[in-house]
Amino acid sequence: MSTQTQAVQEGATRVADEVRRPFAGSRKIHVTGSRPDLRVPMREIAQSPTSTQFGAEDNPPITVYDTAGPYTDPEADIDLRRGLPDVRAGWIAERADSEALDGPTSAFGRERREDPATAGLRFEHLRTPRRATDGANVTQMHYARRGIITPEMEYIAIRENNRLAEMREAYEAAGLLAQHPGESFGAALPEEFTPEFVRQEVAAGRAIIPANINHPESEPMAIGRNFRVKVNANLGNSAVTSSIDEEVEKMIWAIRWGADTVMDLSTGKHIHETREWILRNSPVPIGTVPMYQALEKVNGKAEELTWELFRDTLIEQAEQGVDYFTIHAGVRLPFVPMTAKRKTGIVSRGGSIMAKWCLAHHTESFLYTHFDEICEIMKAYDVSFSLGDGLRPGSVFDANDEAQMAELRTLGELTDRAWANDCQVMIEGPGHVPMQRIKENMEAELSDCSEAPFYTLGPLTTDIAPGYDHITSGIGAANIGWYGTAMLCYVTPKEHLGLPNKHDVREGIVTYKIAAHAADLAKGFPGAQVRDNALSKARFEFRWEDQFNLGLDPDKAKEFHDETLPQDSAKVAHFCSMCGPHFCSMKITQEVRDYAAAQGVDSETALEAGMQEKAVEFRESGGKLYHEQ
Amino acid sequence: MSTQTQAVQEGATRVADEVRRPFAGSRKIHVTGSRPDLRVPMREIAQSPTSTQFGAEDNPPITVYDTAGPYTDPEADIDLRRGLPDVRAGWIAERADSEALDGPTSAFGRERREDPATAGLRFEHLRTPRRATDGANVTQMHYARRGIITPEMEYIAIRENNRLAEMREAYEAAGLLAQHPGESFGAALPEEFTPEFVRQEVAAGRAIIPANINHPESEPMAIGRNFRVKVNANLGNSAVTSSIDEEVEKMIWAIRWGADTVMDLSTGKHIHETREWILRNSPVPIGTVPMYQALEKVNGKAEELTWELFRDTLIEQAEQGVDYFTIHAGVRLPFVPMTAKRKTGIVSRGGSIMAKWCLAHHTESFLYTHFDEICEIMKAYDVSFSLGDGLRPGSVFDANDEAQMAELRTLGELTDRAWANDCQVMIEGPGHVPMQRIKENMEAELSDCSEAPFYTLGPLTTDIAPGYDHITSGIGAANIGWYGTAMLCYVTPKEHLGLPNKHDVREGIVTYKIAAHAADLAKGFPGAQVRDNALSKARFEFRWEDQFNLGLDPDKAKEFHDETLPQDSAKVAHFCSMCGPHFCSMKITQEVRDYAAAQGVDSETALEAGMQEKAVEFRESGGKLYHEQ
Repeated sequence: MSTQTQAVQEGATRVADEVRRPFAGSRKIHVTGSRPDLRVPMREIAQSPTSTQFGAEDNPPITVYDTAGPYTDPEADIDLRRGLPDVRAGWIAERADSEALDGPTSAFGRERREDPATAGLRFEHLRTPRRATDGANVTQMHYARRGIITPEMEYIAIRENNRLAEMREAYEAAGLLAQHPGESFGAALPEEFTPEFVRQEVAAGRAIIPANINHPESEPMAIGRNFRVKVNANLGNSAVTSSIDEEVEKMIWAIRWGADTVMDLSTGKHIHETREWILRNSPVPIGTVPMYQALEKVNGKAEELTWELFRDTLIEQAEQGVDYFTIHAGVRLPFVPMTAKRKTGIVSRGGSIMAKWCLAHHTESFLYTHFDEICEIMKAYDVSFSLGDGLRPGSVFDANDEAQMAELRTLGELTDRAWANDCQVMIEGPGHVPMQRIKENMEAELSDCSEAPFYTLGPLTTDIAPGYDHITSGIGAANIGWYGTAMLCYVTPKEHLGLPNKHDVREGIVTYKIAAHAADLAKGFPGAQVRDNALSKARFEFRWEDQFNLGLDPDKAKEFHDETLPQDSAKVAHFCSMCGPHFCSMKITQEVRDYAAAQGVDSETALEAGMQEKAVEFRESGGKLYHEQ
Repeated sequence: MSTQTQAVQEGATRVADEVRRPFAGSRKIHVTGSRPDLRVPMREIAQSPTSTQFGAEDNPPITVYDTAGPYTDPEADIDLRRGLPDVRAGWIAERADSEALDGPTSAFGRERREDPATAGLRFEHLRTPRRATDGANVTQMHYARRGIITPEMEYIAIRENNRLAEMREAYEAAGLLAQHPGESFGAALPEEFTPEFVRQEVAAGRAIIPANINHPESEPMAIGRNFRVKVNANLGNSAVTSSIDEEVEKMIWAIRWGADTVMDLSTGKHIHETREWILRNSPVPIGTVPMYQALEKVNGKAEELTWELFRDTLIEQAEQGVDYFTIHAGVRLPFVPMTAKRKTGIVSRGGSIMAKWCLAHHTESFLYTHFDEICEIMKAYDVSFSLGDGLRPGSVFDANDEAQMAELRTLGELTDRAWANDCQVMIEGPGHVPMQRIKENMEAELSDCSEAPFYTLGPLTTDIAPGYDHITSGIGAANIGWYGTAMLCYVTPKEHLGLPNKHDVREGIVTYKIAAHAADLAKGFPGAQVRDNALSKARFEFRWEDQFNLGLDPDKAKEFHDETLPQDSAKVAHFCSMCGPHFCSMKITQEVRDYAAAQGVDSETALEAGMQEKAVEFRESGGKLYHEQ
C-alpha cells in the first residue's frame, strides 16, 4: 500500500480524541418527532446549583443547537471506513420518486471507480447513487410547493425550536427567559417553528434545505432569514496535498466548533476520493465549487473548459452526494470589462476562471447559456444552487461597484429560472465592504433576488489587518447577519496569507458563531438570549465551571482562567485574577438582594425603608463582605 | 538591594528589542509646526515600485498616525531611569499661569518621598510638581474658551491631518485617494484640521486634550467625535505584583501596537512608585481610577473611605502627572437599589466601592457632594474628568436599564458643573449591549451629556464567548465608534477570566485598532481609506512585503505567510498557499487592463471593440497566464 493508502486506513481507525471528546458538562440528547426514525440531536449543558449564599436554587440545563453529529456522542461507534449511519435513507425511499442506479452515470465517476491507481484510496462501501425517476423532481422546494411537509422539514422545525417550549417553564423560573426586543429589518421570525412554517419558507424560496438524496447521512438544516443565522467553514488544501484522513478530521473539527455546513474546496489529484470520504462521514451539508475540479481536468487551462466536461463534473459530484454547488453563472461576458477599473480586479477563483474563458472565446459564459440544463441536473438529485458572486469586491475600494451590482441583478434573473424548475437557491455575497455600505448589499440582494437566502463572505470592513481578517470580517458578518444574511461564510486569521491550520479553523468558526449569535440576538430570535442569561448568572454566582461550559469554547475559557489560577479552589473562589481576592465588584449587589429578600418585600421598597438598618448591619459585618481566602 | 529594586534598575537599562524595534519598512518622521519646538511624530511606510508587468510605477510612502513615541526611533537614546524628554515643558512655562512647588503637597506624596523602604524603587529624577498659581485655571478648555490656540492644539491639528494635504498629489497619482462617502450620524468631520478647529471643539466640550501640566513628556492628542476614533489600553496587575519594569515595558508594548492612551489600574504596595515610572516614560496620556489607590489606603474597607483621604489621593496623582481620572460620581445612593433586579449587579469596581460606601453610611456619595472641590483640583493641574459609569451593565440582560440611564443623566449634570469650571470631561459608557440597542446608548449620551466625548468599554454584543471577548466587544466597538464614540477602551481575550499577558494585550489592541479604523472609514474620516487602498493595490500587485508592512501587525502577517511559504522567492511569487501557484484569481484582471492599455484607449471601449482580437491572443498565450514556477 502507498503511504497515502496507509494514511487513509490508519486515519480511518483513529479519530483524534480532541475532535471527538464530548464538551465538559454536556451530553447529547435526541428529541423524537412524529415518527420513531425522526430523532433530532441537541446538546444539553448541565448546570450546578446556586450556592446557598446566593439563594440556593437549582439551575436548569441549557439546550444548545448541535452541529457536531454523532462524533461527540460517547455511545456512537465511529468508523470512518464505514461512514455515518443513514438519517434520511428511509425518507428518501418512501417518496418513491427516485431510483438506485447501477453505478455512477458520469464518465469520470465510472473511470475513477475502475481506476486501480486510486484503489487504495477509495472509500470501501461506495453507495449506489440514486437519481430522480424520469420526469420526477426530488427537491425539497418541489415538495414544499405541492404542500408536502417532508420529515426533513419537521426535523428542522424541532431543531430550530431547540426545546424552547419544553424548557420555557424551567427557564422562566430561573429568570433566564427575558430578552431584549429585536430589530429584524423585515425578517419575520416565528414565536415557534412548525413544520408548516418551514414548508412555507422553502416554498417561497426564502429558505433552502441543502439535502442531496445521495447524502442521506446529513442531519437536515435550513438556511433562511427567518431561521437561526448559520455559519459555513471552507476546508480543503491547495497546492500541497494533505492526506485524506487529515481532510476528514478537519471536517469533524469544524462541525465540533459549530460549522453548519462545510465547503470542500480541495484541489489536486485525489479530490474525487477525498470528497467521497468527507461526504460519507459528514452530518452537515457539503458544498463544492465544481468548476475547481473541472479546471483540474483540463490541467488548469480555463480556455479548454467545455459545457460537456462541466456537465459531467456536476453529475459526478451530484451522485456522490454534494448538497450545494457554487455556480458562477452571473459572470457574463459584458461584465468583465467593468472590472478593469478595479483596485483588486476579480478575486473569486471561479469568477476569474469564467472571465478568462469568456475572454478566450469571446462568447457568453456556458454556465449562463446552459443554465436550464444545469437546473435539470440539480432537481434530479436535489442539489441546491449557491449562485456565486464571481465579481465580488476584493477590497474596500471595489465595494458595491458596477460589476458587483450587475452580477447581482443577473443572479436575481437566474434565481427566477431556477425557481421555475423548483430548484433551491441561495445567493453568494461579498467580500470587502466598509460598514456604512453593508446594508445596501443586503437590501439590493433582497430586492434583486426576491428574498432568496443571502450567503456572504464576511464582509471585511477594512483591508489593513492581514493576520486578523477573521476580526475585520467578523464585524461585517455580525452586521450583515443582523440585516438579514442567512449564512455567514467564515474567514480565518490566515485569509490572504496562506492555508488555515486547525487552530485557524477553530478561531474562524468561533468568531463566526459569535457574529451569528450576536445577529440572532439583534434580530430577536426567540430564546436566543437564554444562553447569555444563563452564562451571566453563572458568572455573577461564581459558578466557574458552568461559565466555561456554557461558552462557545469551554476549553479555551478554562485554559485562560487556569493560566493564573490553576488550583481547584479557584473554581469556587469569588474572584478571578482580574481584580483579585481583595475586592470583587460583583459581591455588593448580592448584599442588596439578600437584604431585600430578608425583608420579604420588593427590593427597592426594602432598601428605601431599611437603608438605615442596613447601614448598621454593614458596619458590623465589615470586612466579611468578601470571601475570606 | 531587594530583588524588586534590582528588577527596576536592570529593567531600566534594557528595553526588550521586541518592544523597540522599528516596524519593517517604516521610519519615524516629524512634521514641524509654527515653532521649532513643535515637532509632530508620524510613521512613514515606504513602498516598493510596481513591477513592470503591472505597469511599472512608483508607489508613494504612506503616512500613518503614530502612538509609539520615541521608542521606535533608532536615533532615540532611551534610558527608563532618566525618562522621556519633555515635549511640552516650554509651552507650559510660557503660559506663566503655573508655578513649580517645593515638592508634593499631598500628605501621601510627601510620605512616600521620604520612605526609606521604597527608596530603591523610586524614580531617580523626580520632577518638582507644578500647580496653577492662585486663582489660575490651566485647562486646555479654559484657554480654548478664551480664544487661545495652544501649541497643543496646533500639534493635534497637524497630527490628525497626518500629512494628507502634502501627500494628496502623490496619493492621487497612485489612485489611492478614492474613498466611499461616509455616514457620520451627526459628526462634523472637517476636510482639513486647523488649530482653530481644534480650539473650537475643545471650547465646546466636544473634544478633550488630556494634558496634565505635570506630564510634559506626553505628545498631545485629542479625544472627540470629530477626530480619529481613539483606543485605550488598560494595564496594571491585581493580586500578584509584577515588577515595575514589567509594567513600564507593558506600556511601551501597548503604544507600539497603537494605544492612544493607557490606563494604569495597578494595585498593591508600590502603585505610587510604579505610576511615577510609567508617567516619566509615557508619550501617551495616562489615566487612573484614584479610588483604587484610596481603597488600598484603607486596606480595602470601602466604608472607611473619607473625602479627605480621597482628596489627598487626587492631589498625589495630579502632581505626578496623571492626565485623566475616572471618577464614579454618578453612583448616587438612590440608584443603588435599582441594581437589585439585575442579572450581574454592579460590575464596575469603582462603582461597587461607592455603592458599598453609600449603603454603609446611608448618605449620598462624597464624590457627588464634593464634586465642585474635585473640579478645583482638576483645573489646577489640568486633569481631565473621565466620568465613570459605575452602574454600567455587566451582561446583555442588564443593558440599557434604569440604573444605567439614571447614572448617565447624572453624568450629564456633572458635565455641566465641570464645564462651569472649564474642566475637560469625557463620559464612560458600557459594557454589555446587544447590537440593536447600542445606538440608543450613543444617542442618550449625546443628548444627556451635551455632546461630551463618549468613551466606551466595548460594548460586548453577547455573553456566550469567554476567551473571545476581544471579538464579542470588537463588534460592538466598531458599531458604537461609527455612531460617534470618541475613544474605545479595549477588551482582551482574557476578559472575565484573568489578567492579560503581553500576547493578550497585543491581540486586544490590534482588534480595537481595527474597530476604530472601520469606524473612521464608516464616518468618512478624510483620507482614512488611503491605507486600505495602498494595501489592496500592493496585494493585487503581489508586493508581499508592502502588504505586510502596510498592515496593523506586519510581524504576524509575515509570520502567517511564511508558515507555508518561508522562502524568499515566495515574497515575489504571484500566489500564496491559499490558491497555490497553479491559478491565482487576481491575475486575470491584469490581462484585461494590459490589453486596454496597449490599445491606448479606455478599458471598456477597448474590450468591447477588441474582444475578438483579445480572444485570439489569449488562445495563443495559453498557459502563460500565470507565473511559471
